[in-house]
Amino acid sequence: MGSGNKIEPRTVKGFRDLPPHLAEAKYAIIDSLRQQARLAGFSLLATPAVEFAEVLLGSAGQETDKEVYKFADHGGRELALRYDLTVPFARFVAANQGQLVFPFKKFQVDEVWRGEKPQKGRYRQFCQADFDIVGVDSLAADVEVMLQLHSGIHAFVGGKFTMLLNHRMLLNAVMKKFFPGATVEQLPRLLIAIDKLAKIGGDGVSKLIAEIFPGSGQAASEMLAVINSKDQNGDTDLSLLDTLVASDSAAVECMRRLRETLAICRSLRPAAKNLGRFQLDLSVARGLGYYTGVVFETILDELPGFGSVSSGGRYNTLVERFIDRSLPGVGGSVGVDRLLAALEELQRLPPPPTGGLMVAVATDDAYAYAFTILQTLRTAGYVADIGMTSGKVGNQFKYADRRNYTHVITVGSDEMQRQCFSLKDMTTGQEQRDLALVDLLQVVSKVK
Amino acid sequence: MGSGNKIEPRTVKGFRDLPPHLAEAKYAIIDSLRQQARLAGFSLLATPAVEFAEVLLGSAGQETDKEVYKFADHGGRELALRYDLTVPFARFVAANQGQLVFPFKKFQVDEVWRGEKPQKGRYRQFCQADFDIVGVDSLAADVEVMLQLHSGIHAFVGGKFTMLLNHRMLLNAVMKKFFPGATVEQLPRLLIAIDKLAKIGGDGVSKLIAEIFPGSGQAASEMLAVINSKDQNGDTDLSLLDTLVASDSAAVECMRRLRETLAICRSLRPAAKNLGRFQLDLSVARGLGYYTGVVFETILDELPGFGSVSSGGRYNTLVERFIDRSLPGVGGSVGVDRLLAALEELQRLPPPPTGGLMVAVATDDAYAYAFTILQTLRTAGYVADIGMTSGKVGNQFKYADRRNYTHVITVGSDEMQRQCFSLKDMTTGQEQRDLALVDLLQVVSKVK
Repeated sequence: MGSGNKIEPRTVKGFRDLPPHLAEAKYAIIDSLRQQARLAGFSLLATPAVEFAEVLLGSAGQETDKEVYKFADHGGRELALRYDLTVPFARFVAANQGQLVFPFKKFQVDEVWRGEKPQKGRYRQFCQADFDIVGVDSLAADVEVMLQLHSGIHAFVGGKFTMLLNHRMLLNAVMKKFFPGATVEQLPRLLIAIDKLAKIGGDGVSKLIAEIFPGSGQAASEMLAVINSKDQNGDTDLSLLDTLVASDSAAVECMRRLRETLAICRSLRPAAKNLGRFQLDLSVARGLGYYTGVVFETILDELPGFGSVSSGGRYNTLVERFIDRSLPGVGGSVGVDRLLAALEELQRLPPPPTGGLMVAVATDDAYAYAFTILQTLRTAGYVADIGMTSGKVGNQFKYADRRNYTHVITVGSDEMQRQCFSLKDMTTGQEQRDLALVDLLQVVSKVK
Repeated sequence: MGSGNKIEPRTVKGFRDLPPHLAEAKYAIIDSLRQQARLAGFSLLATPAVEFAEVLLGSAGQETDKEVYKFADHGGRELALRYDLTVPFARFVAANQGQLVFPFKKFQVDEVWRGEKPQKGRYRQFCQADFDIVGVDSLAADVEVMLQLHSGIHAFVGGKFTMLLNHRMLLNAVMKKFFPGATVEQLPRLLIAIDKLAKIGGDGVSKLIAEIFPGSGQAASEMLAVINSKDQNGDTDLSLLDTLVASDSAAVECMRRLRETLAICRSLRPAAKNLGRFQLDLSVARGLGYYTGVVFETILDELPGFGSVSSGGRYNTLVERFIDRSLPGVGGSVGVDRLLAALEELQRLPPPPTGGLMVAVATDDAYAYAFTILQTLRTAGYVADIGMTSGKVGNQFKYADRRNYTHVITVGSDEMQRQCFSLKDMTTGQEQRDLALVDLLQVVSKVK
């Protein structure tokens, strides 16, 4: 190709490449979560990136605010890229209910897409690692999922984070107390307004509420006072709610379960041990429409404005979008790309693997010999690379240096004929010559 | 939600879920390839699934036959889902050439999409694991990539496979010998016709050629005779080509390199050792327009009609689509989902992980205690699950049985108060009671 007509090598806004140091870190996070899931008895699952739009959005288009990427396939059907892993999982469960062992515990790590406005650390494609348990409405399942996320975050950021808990139905009860005339259109908007409390503050939320319920200033400020109230532990003060929703037995039960969940979580991961904290926060709403019980998100203490790196909740009716069988579920994600961006920001990326050997090739006829050496080293578990610019041994050493290989083996026709090699320590500059090929692994085991 | 208005829980045609046994096998393949890549000095990379359509398709729309999924984003730009990992890699290299150490060796494992007609073992979304080396046009790089694929396939199917090699420019020279008047539109069509030889046979290919070059029957049959010729090793008989393209020095050089590549590959993986075979096959064209040198694909001997599970080739001008710098490359994919489908077909999936313990919980108040036990077991590296249907210990045992857990620990209020547990061996049915919590790991280490 000539020099004309070049296509600009750019990525689409909101999408990014992960060069090696970030890709290594991302896989380190994924591997750690996957190992954790395995030890906890979660089964792996994979579902397609592309689904029927109605599967993802529901017949009422419940989640259209997520700016889903939709397109028509070659047969004209309306398809979409998944915007989370929960709805496709519910679809999978519905389709395979006869074959699954319930409670079904699954782990899935995959990419999702949302056409939202890109922000610092937020991209239009991002990776989620989801732990879900479906088929039982039990506090044990809630705790199991939350502990997985908690451990997953702890493994990379240490103890400086807080998992915020709430109960969607309790928040609904509070909203209905202060806005008893709210319609089914207004309630979700109110929920989303409250969810923004940490981001835009009480005044900002009040303004949003005034748009939904004009002239509701007093109700809004009274409600926000309850939501913002704190007890001596820094939790939302549930004693205010004890009075407020005393006559609402469902809400009372939500409070009981929330308190018990919090108590178990704290007993297992005491804040005193610097393992990360749990905190009750009535303003945590989570925007997604399918939540029906506990909801949670995770904030890094060192990056308070960064937003949540891990979140989820209970969804007891999502599978019923597809089938007439009650299969309550709970699930949560570690936002792998969010966590990666946070670790970048904190300059605390997991360290990349280092070290390794390289075989430099002095003459073209020695390639087969060099590859034999490589094969022996790799089979024995050593990182071993090969010089690919034949004849230019200087360039090969420069490459070894830039790749941070600690040792270079050199071979050429002469070494091949005599079945030997030389070995240079790149740190000390010391070189050993005429080492016998039969001693390769023994020699290398001494220096590596 | 009520029983009305259910959405059918179906996947889009050509897309499939991977239930646990298949997802486990897929990750086993990916992990094995990634470990292999690490030992061979390939760096990890990730690029977005979504790219500008012109990046993927080129200004001339070279690859439109791949039925790329295109769509407009919310700002009206023409985007597409990647149909391979090679073109996005070339885009990445062009954009980051100043930061990379060349030769740059990368490994990427990711999903790609093609709207082709779904067939047995072929889906519209599939996972590829790509090994690429860019920045050098060297036989060593070709061999390094081919050996990676060869080892990757060998690890899962054993020795019963054949890697077919060819050289795109040599095939071009042969086509031009027999069809000297062919236009730039006709040559790619001829290439694609030849690529179908294994699938539709000589008569089928002749028919396709007659459509491209009406009345060319004799030239076609002469050309196919050369392409189908075999020497005593079962390779395409290059001695016929020695005469045919003797005056074409570029083609002569292609043959030299192809012979040398084949010789090195065979010396490193001798067929006699049952490690898989290498075979020269002039009919291997690989449809993609960007190949300029060696091309290869891999056929499973036990599934000859299944098609290739691993393929690739040299692309010396692809980066020049984006920038005015020569960065020749070579790369190849293991088709992870194709390999998975083949292993399914052969009933030779890697065995799923088995075993593990479960903690059954007899009374609700013992959950915190049960989770403490879980935490100890998991931290020590045991697979440990928890019963989530509180109070119904029978159901919990049934679950343990269906999940194939080998041991069940039972705890309730009583055990919690006395800091003990009981342990049942699910194989023998034997139960030990009143075991002390402090001895947990010691007791478990004896039975696991």
